[in-house]
Amino acid sequence: MIYAKNTTKHRVRHSDTDDWQIVYYANYFRWYEHGRTELLRKIGIEVGEMETKEKLLIPVIEAKNNYFAPVKFDDELTLESQLTEIGNTHFKVDYVLFKRKQKISEGYTVHVFTDRNLKKKKIHAKIEKLKVKK
Amino acid sequence: MIYAKNTTKHRVRHSDTDDWQIVYYANYFRWYEHGRTELLRKIGIEVGEMETKEKLLIPVIEAKNNYFAPVKFDDELTLESQLTEIGNTHFKVDYVLFKRKQKISEGYTVHVFTDRNLKKKKIHAKIEKLKVKK
Amino acid sequence: MIYAKNTTKHRVRHSDTDDWQIVYYANYFRWYEHGRTELLRKIGIEVGEMETKEKLLIPVIEAKNNYFAPVKFDDELTLESQLTEIGNTHFKVDYVLFKRKQKISEGYTVHVFTDRNLKKKKIHAKIEKLKVKK
Amino acid sequence: MIYAKNTTKHRVRHSDTDDWQIVYYANYFRWYEHGRTELLRKIGIEVGEMETKEKLLIPVIEAKNNYFAPVKFDDELTLESQLTEIGNTHFKVDYVLFKRKQKISEGYTVHVFTDRNLKKKKIHAKIEKLKVKK
Repeated sequence: MIYAKNTTKHRVRHSDTDDWQIVYYANYFRWYEHGRTELLRKIGIEVGEMETKEKLLIPVIEAKNNYFAPVKFDDELTLESQLTEIGNTHFKVDYVLFKRKQKISEGYTVHVFTDRNLKKKKIHAKIEKLKVKK
Repeated sequence: MIYAKNTTKHRVRHSDTDDWQIVYYANYFRWYEHGRTELLRKIGIEVGEMETKEKLLIPVIEAKNNYFAPVKFDDELTLESQLTEIGNTHFKVDYVLFKRKQKISEGYTVHVFTDRNLKKKKIHAKIEKLKVKK
Repeated sequence: MIYAKNTTKHRVRHSDTDDWQIVYYANYFRWYEHGRTELLRKIGIEVGEMETKEKLLIPVIEAKNNYFAPVKFDDELTLESQLTEIGNTHFKVDYVLFKRKQKISEGYTVHVFTDRNLKKKKIHAKIEKLKVKK
Repeated sequence: MIYAKNTTKHRVRHSDTDDWQIVYYANYFRWYEHGRTELLRKIGIEVGEMETKEKLLIPVIEAKNNYFAPVKFDDELTLESQLTEIGNTHFKVDYVLFKRKQKISEGYTVHVFTDRNLKKKKIHAKIEKLKVKK
């Protein structure tokens, strides 16, 4: 089930690469954070405001990535992020990264809503609403 | 099957954290790189020399992590890395991160051997040897 | 003397921040790299191609930054980069970072041209040309 | 004037490097953070506790670095950090990074004490005390 989706653009910077002359494996997850933040913005959740006003965080409890082809400095990439799972306390975002038509990587992250002390909270109404609609 | 294992120590720095006041989720994979490099050193593979002399890289094709409890600035952590799978071209390393007795996270990475152009190569003799021994 | 200038846009991500809930001081230099790469592109130097075809790098020999006001997650920033000094082997780029009208930071980096073994080379013709013009 | 000094050890990881196959220029400041935190610990300031109990931060207002020689993956480095300036609200730390006897880089950072809202506070008693002693 795809509850919401979004596309973001990324360009590889030197700071993303390592001395194998490809992007360092952990840095894909920075792009995924970017895609996720914009996806949530699209469904009405401003992550920054949610943190300061509603005092809610969305820590990651699981993250996975498969790497199909390397990417290099200055490569232009397109990231598709999709909200694919909505539970009582968690949600899941799937990511596919492309260089033109070529699939570069595919991954996901699972998140829970918590207060600032990392205590679990009910899923945000703006996400729950998407589930009801479908 | 555990072909080799290793323990490394890590202390959380400001650069590891984000504004949720816990370690940023991608940065666990930096510690895993550290543990993995030292694990390979222990079985006789100096990753730096292997890259410059044998012209071999070990890019990641899959990475996963489960996050059980947050960690904060200045926390002292222990990482256990284990070489658990050896194939014809790939190997897998498992990681468990502890804060004293508490399990903080658990993950793995899968790697292949390639030349500097990212073309797949046979697994390194020093890793294959471990398989034969068992 | 301003030989060339450029403006880039940046939005603060969680990965840029630390547990003081502001952007980590080293990460400003990542934005400066971004601004610099686009500034060089504007004057006809594709840094990626220059590295692979002309085998030229532009390592930093000096970097400085003054921090006037903190920036936070999701802040939208504007970076002005200016090429301000051209020598026989080095060049200097100045940076000013703004949040709307507010000056956030001001810094510079000095670079030399080298081959892939980090041996110094003469400044790139496309930069030298800018000097002659003025 | 040297009010306090400290030595820390660092080993270059893949995550520190970029595709020029040397350490990325911004990452030196991560090592400097490490050296600074341990230097402050040595004079009795636990930065983590200070943040949570005394609600004090020490944001950077100026940072500079000169790069003399590149460093590569797996290089073993020694960092000397020195507290060299103590004002009413600020202090300065100088850094010299060595690879064996070779000087790799030299830099400094200037910090102020602030509360969690980034409002300036008087310098910490444990630092001021060092000034009186001299």
